[in-house]
Amino acid sequence: MSQLLVVGTVAFDAIETPFGQTDKILGGAATYIGLSASRFNTEVGIVSVVGEDFPQEDLDMLAGHGIDLSGIEIVPGGKTFFWSGRYHNDLNVRDTLVTELNVLADFKPVVPEHFKSAEVLMLGNLHPQVQIDVIHQMANRPKMIILDTMNFWMDHTWDTLVEVISMVDVITINDEEARQLSGQYSLVKAAAAIHQMGPKYVVIKKGEHGALLFHNQQVFFAPALPLEEVFDPTGAGDTFAGGLAGFISASRGYSFEHLKTAIIQGSNLASFCVEKFGTLRLEQLDEQERIQRLEQFKNLTQFDISLQGA
Amino acid sequence: MSQLLVVGTVAFDAIETPFGQTDKILGGAATYIGLSASRFNTEVGIVSVVGEDFPQEDLDMLAGHGIDLSGIEIVPGGKTFFWSGRYHNDLNVRDTLVTELNVLADFKPVVPEHFKSAEVLMLGNLHPQVQIDVIHQMANRPKMIILDTMNFWMDHTWDTLVEVISMVDVITINDEEARQLSGQYSLVKAAAAIHQMGPKYVVIKKGEHGALLFHNQQVFFAPALPLEEVFDPTGAGDTFAGGLAGFISASRGYSFEHLKTAIIQGSNLASFCVEKFGTLRLEQLDEQERIQRLEQFKNLTQFDISLQGA
Repeated sequence: MSQLLVVGTVAFDAIETPFGQTDKILGGAATYIGLSASRFNTEVGIVSVVGEDFPQEDLDMLAGHGIDLSGIEIVPGGKTFFWSGRYHNDLNVRDTLVTELNVLADFKPVVPEHFKSAEVLMLGNLHPQVQIDVIHQMANRPKMIILDTMNFWMDHTWDTLVEVISMVDVITINDEEARQLSGQYSLVKAAAAIHQMGPKYVVIKKGEHGALLFHNQQVFFAPALPLEEVFDPTGAGDTFAGGLAGFISASRGYSFEHLKTAIIQGSNLASFCVEKFGTLRLEQLDEQERIQRLEQFKNLTQFDISLQGA
Repeated sequence: MSQLLVVGTVAFDAIETPFGQTDKILGGAATYIGLSASRFNTEVGIVSVVGEDFPQEDLDMLAGHGIDLSGIEIVPGGKTFFWSGRYHNDLNVRDTLVTELNVLADFKPVVPEHFKSAEVLMLGNLHPQVQIDVIHQMANRPKMIILDTMNFWMDHTWDTLVEVISMVDVITINDEEARQLSGQYSLVKAAAAIHQMGPKYVVIKKGEHGALLFHNQQVFFAPALPLEEVFDPTGAGDTFAGGLAGFISASRGYSFEHLKTAIIQGSNLASFCVEKFGTLRLEQLDEQERIQRLEQFKNLTQFDISLQGA
């Protein structure tokens, strides 16, 4: 079986939306990526760090989804990374209330021996130096390296970020971040500029407006499924990236055509993620639901061009 | 040949964008709708009003595109409707600088005898009472009535607007307007509420984020083509509606499948409209360009779902 190695945060989140709020619940980029990727026929391993306060039952839940946790360091006496945020009525806008780095502040990633030849490496949103360290620990250059990042690293660690971007095949980034990274307002021009920085594939996430995949002069668009209710957007971007990475790893296909299907798979999983708080919906998702909704994605965009010229 | 009757403004616009500005140029909803619809194999007629100041060369240009102008009243001594607006750097936001109704203030539409049996009626954005008057003048109920409207009529003529909405088959409206009309934030719920008001098909325009088509429990999404540069968004929504109406009229098909292709055709034409000021790009568009870009729309969203399950 192929392998997908994921590096990213495993964390606690406290979330407030217009529809309710949570205490500290399971969160973190690698958690969402791992749960999403584990839907596909590939071995998923996580490299991360948590504190001694991290519940065994959450580790058991992740292991129950077939995720290899040997790369998760548990720091004795340490506290797990904690993030708290509040969403506005417009769920595209959120305020960060609390960020406690805790054990993440001194995180030195260690890739387990048996994952050093993973075909696909997914670098979740983290300090770009940590992302670079993980690439350097791989025994072989993975067939595909996928990078997620955010505006914080553009503001604070520009040079290191540019370095890691030059080392990857795929970057996933939201529309505002793509504009900031490239200095271009037009997303077509932004993608072209980011191509020049290294990645063959540029994926621009537009939240409820879907995602664009750019590759050379070609472009593909994956819509977001129109939902009656978006309950909690936390983790949607990571779930999207996890579906993308999981599908690519399982398919062992790295072409533009594979990437197209991969971002549809990611969009499909993200559409479930937002239906409940935190990871709840992903944990409970059954395979039949996932496949059925994939059919809806197909129906959402397929049309008969031959109807023209009446 | 089938007939499409269009009612709407024929006007002067003065436009300011971050890229330049114009003097008074040809504009108006019916102008864009007519130019767009005339791309299809159907007879297009316009019902509108202009002043004596309206240039013969603009009338000649429209006639040159095969558009029947016998329903355009020229008011002796009257002045043509004039609108002026300024777009922000974010082209989704614009300020209206001037609105001079002029001859539009007393507009009494008169449908020409030879268009009273048109199969498709497109009601461009106008006072809803004018839209109702046109419906009442038709000899037969058209096979499909398409309505475009805007928030101004929700604010000022609510009851009349609700009445005309109850009389049509298709409504096109932007996302914010759909929310205002329905009182629902979720576009899925908004569309369901608008269905209840009458229209079988609800088309929600999201500008650069594409358009959604709702029909009963079904939904279809037409992306906007990602463009390097949007130069002037004026008329894009009308061009979209014109392509939709023109295709439906030409195809004589009124099913969900036909509507899907129709909104792709409309999106395709709108993608040209925004490339130059005013109607310039639509006037110059050649048929081969139009067909080629339609192919791009197909490539933009088609994926191979069978790639799953590696």
